[in-house]
Amino acid sequence: MVAFPEIAIDQSSDAPVYRQIADAVALAIGNGKLHRGQRLPATRELAGHLGMNRATISAAYALLEESGLIQGHVGRGSFVSEALESSRASRSQTGEPPAINFASSRPAGEAFPLASFRRLSRAVIESDEASEILQLGSPYGYTPLRRYLLEKSRADGIATAGDDILITNGCQQALDLLARSFTATNTKVVCEDPVYHGLLRVFGRSGCQVMPVPVGPHGLDLDLLEPVLLQHRPALIVVTPSYQNPTGATMPADVRRRLAELASASGAVIVESDIYSELRYEGEPVPTVKQSDGAGRTLLLGSYSKISFPGLRVGWVIGPREMIAQMAEEKQVSDLHSDQLSQAVLLRFAQSGELDRHVDRTRDMGRQRLDAALESCQAFLPEGCTWTRPAGGMNLWITLPAPLGAETLLAAARHQGVDFVPGRQFSLTQGHARSLRISFGGLSPEKIRQGLRIVGEAAKRQVAASLNTWDFEPAMALV
Amino acid sequence: MVAFPEIAIDQSSDAPVYRQIADAVALAIGNGKLHRGQRLPATRELAGHLGMNRATISAAYALLEESGLIQGHVGRGSFVSEALESSRASRSQTGEPPAINFASSRPAGEAFPLASFRRLSRAVIESDEASEILQLGSPYGYTPLRRYLLEKSRADGIATAGDDILITNGCQQALDLLARSFTATNTKVVCEDPVYHGLLRVFGRSGCQVMPVPVGPHGLDLDLLEPVLLQHRPALIVVTPSYQNPTGATMPADVRRRLAELASASGAVIVESDIYSELRYEGEPVPTVKQSDGAGRTLLLGSYSKISFPGLRVGWVIGPREMIAQMAEEKQVSDLHSDQLSQAVLLRFAQSGELDRHVDRTRDMGRQRLDAALESCQAFLPEGCTWTRPAGGMNLWITLPAPLGAETLLAAARHQGVDFVPGRQFSLTQGHARSLRISFGGLSPEKIRQGLRIVGEAAKRQVAASLNTWDFEPAMALV
Repeated sequence: MVAFPEIAIDQSSDAPVYRQIADAVALAIGNGKLHRGQRLPATRELAGHLGMNRATISAAYALLEESGLIQGHVGRGSFVSEALESSRASRSQTGEPPAINFASSRPAGEAFPLASFRRLSRAVIESDEASEILQLGSPYGYTPLRRYLLEKSRADGIATAGDDILITNGCQQALDLLARSFTATNTKVVCEDPVYHGLLRVFGRSGCQVMPVPVGPHGLDLDLLEPVLLQHRPALIVVTPSYQNPTGATMPADVRRRLAELASASGAVIVESDIYSELRYEGEPVPTVKQSDGAGRTLLLGSYSKISFPGLRVGWVIGPREMIAQMAEEKQVSDLHSDQLSQAVLLRFAQSGELDRHVDRTRDMGRQRLDAALESCQAFLPEGCTWTRPAGGMNLWITLPAPLGAETLLAAARHQGVDFVPGRQFSLTQGHARSLRISFGGLSPEKIRQGLRIVGEAAKRQVAASLNTWDFEPAMALV
Repeated sequence: MVAFPEIAIDQSSDAPVYRQIADAVALAIGNGKLHRGQRLPATRELAGHLGMNRATISAAYALLEESGLIQGHVGRGSFVSEALESSRASRSQTGEPPAINFASSRPAGEAFPLASFRRLSRAVIESDEASEILQLGSPYGYTPLRRYLLEKSRADGIATAGDDILITNGCQQALDLLARSFTATNTKVVCEDPVYHGLLRVFGRSGCQVMPVPVGPHGLDLDLLEPVLLQHRPALIVVTPSYQNPTGATMPADVRRRLAELASASGAVIVESDIYSELRYEGEPVPTVKQSDGAGRTLLLGSYSKISFPGLRVGWVIGPREMIAQMAEEKQVSDLHSDQLSQAVLLRFAQSGELDRHVDRTRDMGRQRLDAALESCQAFLPEGCTWTRPAGGMNLWITLPAPLGAETLLAAARHQGVDFVPGRQFSLTQGHARSLRISFGGLSPEKIRQGLRIVGEAAKRQVAASLNTWDFEPAMALV
């Protein structure tokens, strides 16, 4: 048989077998394991290889052809489409972004306040502090920035007298240093489900026992968390209470208080990722979990990446002094210290008031973008789709009706230049196969509408295709 | 007894017991476990506690008093000196550097070319690329810098057609990503002995089986390496062939070729830290090990930190494409990508020719500093001291005559405002107790002379003190 990726069929899945095959082929096309123009095995051949009915394979191929991913040529067989939008791997090599990129949770580049960035950077460069910035620094970070952030956090009632601060290369490094400092093989860590894939990779990599607890409309579901705490006594609970990535869910104040109480009672440390909270499009600010935590055992993660310039890698962790000291040790082993030029530039940006002005503008833009996304979901997605309604942030979460799958939809969308991240990427167990994350923060309302129209139309075509097919290969009786 | 650190006596050591006790107390004072003004246990009490002759403890205390670390008050006992230069921990909190800092392997801050840094940074900030720099980037690094470095490396005959490059936050992160990508618990890694402590911490932390092989005047001793390769088949060999940290040793071209052959024959990957090679004060450039490696399995680590501005965290790894891809995966988990502003500024610095001009000046200065250091060793160190004679770089390695110890000497030197790193920090097994690293790159010739005079005089006092004492507690007969 021609080279072909392994296909594992999950008999317990609610997705029919032909769709599981189509999804697996779509995934292989998406990640470059099958390349453009490559011939697929004949249906008879693949059926024999997988020990299945030939009609099941034909149904999978029909669905893939309908999605534009493969093309059948009479007498010659089926081929991966030549015209296909290039795969993720080859795209990242050419650096050519797809036309409409819902895949990256990032701010709008065209809204960067370049004039004030230039003015304030010049001020840093011309200042006497330049030679200090250029010399070797401290693992804890650039002292003037640390002082500014800690004093601000104290003034906001978040940091307490016993707290200290560590500067990190954005929030991602804070997560990595947390895993390095406070976990070992089999350490139990509760995280949200679905959750930011970069978080799963950090804790998965470090050999932790990651315990996903579902996210509902009010964030982490505490009724489901409570028995996990009682039974497993996890060391850490990692949450994003404001505009969670990927669902956009926000935890109300009373739920935050209860989370702090539950964690305190079970001895778990809360890691609160607070990187989106300034991007609030409606309602009043909600106090952080850290503020609600009388026990003072919460670590708060902040970052300038979502509210200013993600290319400058500056984030931070605020928490109990001894824990910060442990993380600073790991920081030194990781990379000595964070880049000081960007720390100094972002400090000026914050101190000058330009950051606040920029956040105000970003909030106005974000509100319009969120509205465009929600209206487009309503207008373009097929019946049976559901989606979250965030009150802020950059992400919303769409769930497709059965038997659709996000990977197949993604392959079809990429064919038309639209990219997003399918749900399985946010799951420890390859779940959420029917969900997808739409990151709207970096796109204009017009692009958002265009992109979601393309996604919606592709989804409608796939609904229609699935009505024309049926499951030739029902789940086997378990013996 | 008053709180006192545990003291483990090594009966097999060639250092007499009273000196081992003095070293342990000096270490405890140095790392803040004993604080200024703290009362030490009475000699009788400590002797009873350790099961030793009281005269041994008295000899240890006499040596510590001679070094200025403790003060005896008749009728009240002995106390850690109040006037002591504050410990490493408390110093790092106040941020107050000692007057003469031989402890940090870094370039001279007063020689930073601030005018060209300012001019080139302004050019970056004003340019059209500013908005690209500020947006989320690639785990591999800023594309224009990657292209520049890879093309330069190819032009220099170092990178081959199959090589790729990853930008890291200085060389430290490259080491960390190497450990993350290519080692697991018990992976065997050969490193130099003595070796940069930051390297030991990276590989020690990741659970590797680190195998130290001694460094001689020609770098890693290949006659000692060969049986290790045959017997243990290590996965990695980590070397700094040019101006090794801490010894300053350089591996000649023929030794590099033999290293490449040995590694190739045993299947080990060579990691070549090449961060000092431009700081050559005499002789001709020596080809890198990577160039000598016909098998093409060497990873070369470079950095701008030692030759320009360590506060801007930009280093890189060049090596086989698949290995770089693995490291880029780990980079993304670690911190997404490196800061882009500094990458763009350093690219301009390199492209404009300012970097080459700065390296030329740094070389001239470094040569003078090295000369001052070697002359001062000759002039001020007591008889019996030996030291290396590097042909470049920033570090040299002094070994004291028995029974002196570097920790005790350090405590006395700090008392007079001079800091250096004692030898044990560069050893996996707490060896090199009589050696110390002198990092001369960041200090003026005058400071180097002042500092080494203080070190030399303290060492002479300790030699004199040890002649007035003798070993009251010979090693016990082993039964």
